[in-house]
Amino acid sequence: MIIRFAFDYLSPYAYLAWCALPAIAARYAATIAPMPVVLGALLGANGQKGPAEIPSKRVYVFKDTTRSASLLGVPLVPPPTHPFNPLLALRVSSLPMSDEARAALVTALFRGCWGGARRELSSPTAVAELASGVGLDGPALVAAAASDENKARLRAQTDAALALGAFGVPSMFVEDELFWGFDSLGHLERRLQGVDPVRGLDMSMWRDLPASATRR
Amino acid sequence: MIIRFAFDYLSPYAYLAWCALPAIAARYAATIAPMPVVLGALLGANGQKGPAEIPSKRVYVFKDTTRSASLLGVPLVPPPTHPFNPLLALRVSSLPMSDEARAALVTALFRGCWGGARRELSSPTAVAELASGVGLDGPALVAAAASDENKARLRAQTDAALALGAFGVPSMFVEDELFWGFDSLGHLERRLQGVDPVRGLDMSMWRDLPASATRR
Repeated sequence: MIIRFAFDYLSPYAYLAWCALPAIAARYAATIAPMPVVLGALLGANGQKGPAEIPSKRVYVFKDTTRSASLLGVPLVPPPTHPFNPLLALRVSSLPMSDEARAALVTALFRGCWGGARRELSSPTAVAELASGVGLDGPALVAAAASDENKARLRAQTDAALALGAFGVPSMFVEDELFWGFDSLGHLERRLQGVDPVRGLDMSMWRDLPASATRR
Repeated sequence: MIIRFAFDYLSPYAYLAWCALPAIAARYAATIAPMPVVLGALLGANGQKGPAEIPSKRVYVFKDTTRSASLLGVPLVPPPTHPFNPLLALRVSSLPMSDEARAALVTALFRGCWGGARRELSSPTAVAELASGVGLDGPALVAAAASDENKARLRAQTDAALALGAFGVPSMFVEDELFWGFDSLGHLERRLQGVDPVRGLDMSMWRDLPASATRR
């Protein structure tokens, strides 16, 4: 079984899910396939605001993730700026490389951003150093990230997530079934376990539900 | 301890939280104070779309709530239409009455809408019948709901929730601390238990975090 993990480094929930997923995957011999996507593009496609763009939600998200990080036993410290431009880090993470190298790179960048190191992921120097820190050629990756081919790769991953129904991050897919957000990990685990109550359920009553009111 | 429960009947997450809260409150001898609010006004104040207004999120929410309802062991069946106009039901639920009567009324309306009875809460007949079903004078409540004074009551509750930082429903407040969504009940319970990691934490590093990028 493969868990596709669509994420953007902007999201502290994605960081928490990245920290929590390996233990869940291991229990079901599942593989995690990281899939960098552009959160801004997912939001834009749905005409949505991001949590950081709604002042009261921004404050709440920081508290909520602090609570979940404490429960999970992982450090959570904000990066120097937020929101920041995540494109370089996402593009570097999208370059062709082995599964092991990509997992190490994603971990290094997530930890660098949210795990206490307070690195600025919009900085080529920071991204190169974090990549080099896990044995990769950081400067070469940063240079390669800007190719048209690689930019197109990140766009294609974002489009693929949208096509699968993603509207935010983290979005996790098990056999094309979407699980959204850190709080969905329990439901995702039950899916892996084979006890997802939605599996095989006729959702047509929900899908065809008519609206009788709309907001102005 | 009082748990203020800000809700709109439109939200299946609010229904699930209303089902789950009594057991949590009982463990800490806490009281639940229902606080009807207009979800559309919370969204409008923040320039947000509601989950039902984003096609892919609408589908996901129905699956996610179906999973949580199954776990909780409560029925969850969609009402005849959704979104519907919730104002009458919210106004009836805002009228002056005893705490016991209000709890019974809110339960009856939530169950009528989401618990399998498939009643249309925008209908005065349905709301009156559901209220009468728990021993209240349904037709009198429906008639009283439309007074200017009562309309102002619902608006004031909505404004109070906004002032406390609400951006969606259910929003639960414990000593003015916000817990948002069905998925926050664990964090809320830890708050009641006295082990909220956010309590007493200096959040200034988060609050003062500068942005280095904004979306166009």
